[in-house]
Amino acid sequence: MFIRNIWYIAGWAKDIGTTPIARRICNEPIVLFRTPKGQVGALIDRCCHRGVPLSLGTVIEAGIECGYHGLVMDCSGTCVHIPGQKNIPASTKIRSYPVVEKDELIWIWMGDPKLADPSQILDYPVHNDYKNWPHKHGFYRIKGNYQLLVDNLMDLTHLGYVHKTTIGGDPNTHVSAQMETRETSRGVKVIRHMPNCLPPPTYRKGVPFAGHVDRWQEFEFVPPATVLQWSGAADAGKGALTDENQRDGGFSIRVFHGVTPETESTCLYFWSTANGYRQDDPQATEDLYNDVSTAFREDQVMIEAQQKMLEETGEADLVSIIHDRGRIQMRRIVDRLIEHENLQESAAASA
Amino acid sequence: MFIRNIWYIAGWAKDIGTTPIARRICNEPIVLFRTPKGQVGALIDRCCHRGVPLSLGTVIEAGIECGYHGLVMDCSGTCVHIPGQKNIPASTKIRSYPVVEKDELIWIWMGDPKLADPSQILDYPVHNDYKNWPHKHGFYRIKGNYQLLVDNLMDLTHLGYVHKTTIGGDPNTHVSAQMETRETSRGVKVIRHMPNCLPPPTYRKGVPFAGHVDRWQEFEFVPPATVLQWSGAADAGKGALTDENQRDGGFSIRVFHGVTPETESTCLYFWSTANGYRQDDPQATEDLYNDVSTAFREDQVMIEAQQKMLEETGEADLVSIIHDRGRIQMRRIVDRLIEHENLQESAAASA
Amino acid sequence: MFIRNIWYIAGWAKDIGTTPIARRICNEPIVLFRTPKGQVGALIDRCCHRGVPLSLGTVIEAGIECGYHGLVMDCSGTCVHIPGQKNIPASTKIRSYPVVEKDELIWIWMGDPKLADPSQILDYPVHNDYKNWPHKHGFYRIKGNYQLLVDNLMDLTHLGYVHKTTIGGDPNTHVSAQMETRETSRGVKVIRHMPNCLPPPTYRKGVPFAGHVDRWQEFEFVPPATVLQWSGAADAGKGALTDENQRDGGFSIRVFHGVTPETESTCLYFWSTANGYRQDDPQATEDLYNDVSTAFREDQVMIEAQQKMLEETGEADLVSIIHDRGRIQMRRIVDRLIEHENLQESAAASA
Ligand code: FES
Ligand code: FES
Ligand code: FES
Repeated sequence: MFIRNIWYIAGWAKDIGTTPIARRICNEPIVLFRTPKGQVGALIDRCCHRGVPLSLGTVIEAGIECGYHGLVMDCSGTCVHIPGQKNIPASTKIRSYPVVEKDELIWIWMGDPKLADPSQILDYPVHNDYKNWPHKHGFYRIKGNYQLLVDNLMDLTHLGYVHKTTIGGDPNTHVSAQMETRETSRGVKVIRHMPNCLPPPTYRKGVPFAGHVDRWQEFEFVPPATVLQWSGAADAGKGALTDENQRDGGFSIRVFHGVTPETESTCLYFWSTANGYRQDDPQATEDLYNDVSTAFREDQVMIEAQQKMLEETGEADLVSIIHDRGRIQMRRIVDRLIEHENLQESAAASA
Repeated sequence: MFIRNIWYIAGWAKDIGTTPIARRICNEPIVLFRTPKGQVGALIDRCCHRGVPLSLGTVIEAGIECGYHGLVMDCSGTCVHIPGQKNIPASTKIRSYPVVEKDELIWIWMGDPKLADPSQILDYPVHNDYKNWPHKHGFYRIKGNYQLLVDNLMDLTHLGYVHKTTIGGDPNTHVSAQMETRETSRGVKVIRHMPNCLPPPTYRKGVPFAGHVDRWQEFEFVPPATVLQWSGAADAGKGALTDENQRDGGFSIRVFHGVTPETESTCLYFWSTANGYRQDDPQATEDLYNDVSTAFREDQVMIEAQQKMLEETGEADLVSIIHDRGRIQMRRIVDRLIEHENLQESAAASA
Repeated sequence: MFIRNIWYIAGWAKDIGTTPIARRICNEPIVLFRTPKGQVGALIDRCCHRGVPLSLGTVIEAGIECGYHGLVMDCSGTCVHIPGQKNIPASTKIRSYPVVEKDELIWIWMGDPKLADPSQILDYPVHNDYKNWPHKHGFYRIKGNYQLLVDNLMDLTHLGYVHKTTIGGDPNTHVSAQMETRETSRGVKVIRHMPNCLPPPTYRKGVPFAGHVDRWQEFEFVPPATVLQWSGAADAGKGALTDENQRDGGFSIRVFHGVTPETESTCLYFWSTANGYRQDDPQATEDLYNDVSTAFREDQVMIEAQQKMLEETGEADLVSIIHDRGRIQMRRIVDRLIEHENLQESAAASA
C-alpha cells in the first residue's frame, strides 16, 4: 500500500537522457527518457501494440519509438506514428505520469494527474548551490521495503552498531545524547544537540576549532520518504544550536536521503552529500562522499536481512524501544496520509 | 493450454545419441536417447522406482538404465530389469511417446498414441538436400511463450527495428512493401513480392545480377508452430514471383523455424539456414548461418522482455495494427485446433 | 511435517564459536554461537526489536548483541540490555532451544523444552577416540528432503550405480549379497555379511590379509535421521560376523551419517569417516575421507534431481522393490513417531 497522490523521486536529473531507462516505482513499470529538445517523459513501460517494454526502444524527436515494430509514443503517452498505417486508434493511448525537474531531481506523480501540484515538491536549495555546498550524488537499489530504510534514517542509535568501524564510532555517544522529536508543518524532525563538548577528530581535521563546540544533528522527515540531514558543530557559546544563522564557519555537512518505493519489498535510494566546511577543497567533498557510500552499504546489509526476516515472520510481536520515537512518528504520518487517501476515494466512489 | 494431438519437434536427429538428454515439452519432463542399435526412445523422465530422472542414467542395449538403482526401461517404457529381483510388476510401466525421425528432425507426439500418424508430419526436403541447399542447424531456448516467437516470425515489420543494425536495414522497405496473407491447406502464408526493384547489397554480393530483380519473401505457417521461410530474388521479368520454377539461378535462401512449447512461458527454437545461391561456397553457408544466429538473439531479447511484461499485465488491452494480419490468422488456426480437441474430449467423455 | 520432540544435530561442536552462525533447522531460523566462557546458545535468529537476524550481531560476554541497535540477548533468550533504556519489558524474551554438546556434535531440541532429556541422545564413542578411530568431519547442504538422503543410506544397491567409478565397483556384488533387515531397540539395522570371500583390492591395500575373509556391512538407522555405518573384513573363520569383538586387526571403517531437516526440501548432512585399520597412518585417514567426500557428492546429484522431480510429480505411483526393505522400515518408524506426537498433542489439547 503506497500513498499515490504525492511526489516521488524518479531519478537524478543528470541520469535521464536520450537513452531510455526502465524504473519500477510503486510497483508500476515506467520508462523515463528525455527528448533531444530536453522534455522529460515518464510513461508506462509497455507498448500498446504487443506489450514490449518501451525502454528497449529508441528516443527520437517525437518521443520514444518502440524497439519491436516502431510505434512512436510522445511524452503525453499519445501514439503519434504506426508504421504502415495512417489511422491511429484512440485505444493506443498509454498512461503518462506528470514529472517535474527540480533541484537536480526528477519528481514523478503516481496518483491522479489532476491533483499534481508542483508547488508541493520540497525545496532543496543545496542541490543548486555548488559554491557553498559542493556535493555529489548516489543511487542505491535496496532489497527492502522503503519504510525500513526511512526507519533506519530516523534512528541514530544504529550509528554506533552498524557503523562501528566507519562513521559511527563509540555507541555510547549516540545512545546517551539528549534527543528531541518535534513535529514540523509537514513531517517530523529528530534533533540532537550537544552543547559545549569537545569536537571529534574528523571535525577537528576539517576545521581548526579553538576549543569547545556546540554540536547538532538534525534529521527532518518529509513525506512520503525524504529525510534532510544537517550535522555539524560551531564554536561553543555562539548560539549555533538555537539560531541556524550562527552555524557558518564551523563544521557542517548536509545529506539528502530520498527514498522511493520500487516494489513492496524493494526501494530506490537517492542520496547526496554536501560539504559545508571546506568548500574549496574537492578532496573533502570526495572523502565525505566515499565515507557515506561505505556506511550506506552497511545499512543495506541490515535492511535486506531485516526485510527477509519480516517477510517470513511478520512484525506483530516486535517490541519498540525509547529510541524508536522518531521512527514511530514518521510511520504515523505516512499511515495518516494513506488513510486520508482511502477516505477520499471512498467519498468519490459514493458521490 | 497446448494442442496435444499433433507432432512437435523434440530435437535435431544428430543431437539424440547414446547420451540421454532431458527435455521438457508441453510442460512434460521427457528423456530422449538412442540405443546402440539406433532406436530413438522418448520416455517420461521419471523412474518408476523412486522418481529419479532417467536422463541421469546410462543407455544400454536394452534401453535406459536408471542411474540410482539400476532399473532398466526399454523404448516402450516397459521395465525389463530390476536388480536383485526376478518378478517385474506391471506398475513399473512408464509413459513412452511416439517418435519419428524425419528430415533431420526427431518429431514427438504428445497426445493420444492411437492417433499418432507419421504421414501428418510436414515434409522439408531441404534438410535432405545438401547439394542444392547446403545448410546448418541452430537450437535456442527462449524464455517466452512459443506463440510470441511465432508472432515474431509471422510479422515482417520488426525486421527494420529489431534488426536495424544486422539483417534488417531500412525500416521503410519492410513497412511499405505490398503484403498478402493467404490461407493454405494446413496453415497460412504471408507473402511479400517486390517486382522490378534494385537488388540490395547482400544479394548483389551473392549473385552478379545484370539489372533489376523480382524479389520475394514468403513465410508459411504450419501448425502447431513451424514457419517455412523462402526469401530471394531473380532477374526481373522471368516470372519468378508467380512461378516457383523460375527462381533458380537467382539469390535464394530457406530458413526453417520450428518452435516447441517447453513450458507455458518458455519454448525451444529449432532453426536451420540453407544457402540456395552459392551452393559450392561453404563460407556463404557459414556466413548466412552466422548472420541469422545474431539476428535471432536480437529477437530473443524482445520476446523475453515481452513475456515478462505480459505475465505481469496481460494482453487484454493491447491494440492490433494492420501488419498483424498474418499473426492473427496464425493464432486463429491454433485456437481452432485447441477448441476442436476440447470438443473431441468432451464427446469422448460423454460417450 | 517434522518430529519435534527429538534431538537433532545442529552442527559440529568445533564449528560453533564466537562468530555467530545462521542455520535453519526444521524450517526455523536459528542463530548458534558460543560465549567467550564456552556456553553454547541457540536462539531464534530474530531480534525482538526490529526483527533483524541476530546472526549479523556480535557475541559478547553476556550473550549476543544485535548488530542493528545493540540489544543484548543471553543464551536463554532473555534480553539483558537495551541501549539508552533501563526498563526491559518481558515481551523482549525470545525463543531459545535446549542444546547439548556430546561426541563432537551440538545437538538441539526443537520441541517442548520440558521434554528435552539429554540421556536420549545417541552415543557415538568413535568421535572421542582418536587413538583407535582417527577420523575427520564433513558437512554438506543438500537440496533434498532429509528423508531422501536417509533413503539413500538405507539402501546398498545404489553403490554399484551411483558410485560405479568411485567407491562402488561392480553392481552385482552389491545386488546379489545376502541382506538382513533387523529391528533394533530404537531403529532398524540393515546387515550384509559375506563369509569366506576374497578381500577387494582396497581392503588388501589396507591390511595384508593371508587369505579369505569374512566381510560385513552394517547400517543402523536411529531416528530421526542418523545412520551409523560399520564396514570391514577379518580373517575368515574367526567369527567376526557374529561376534563384534573378533573384528579387531582386520579392515574396518566407521562412517557417521547425521541428517537434519533444514526445510521441507533441503537438509543438512553431517558426516564423519573413521579409520579403524591403519590408525597410525594419517594418510589412510585422509584418503578415506577424500573418497567418501567424492562419493557423497555423487549421491547429492541424484537426491537433488529426485527432490525436484518429486516436488513436481509426487510419489503416489512409485513402485517399491525388494531392496527397499530397510528404507521402508525406516520410514515406518519415523511415521510412527510423528503419529505418536500428533496423538499426544490432541490429548493435551482436549485435556
Ligand atoms: S510491441 Fe511495440 S510496436 Fe509492436
Ligand atoms: S530411482 Fe530409478 S532405480 Fe531407483
Ligand atoms: S533490530 Fe535488534 S536491536 Fe534493533
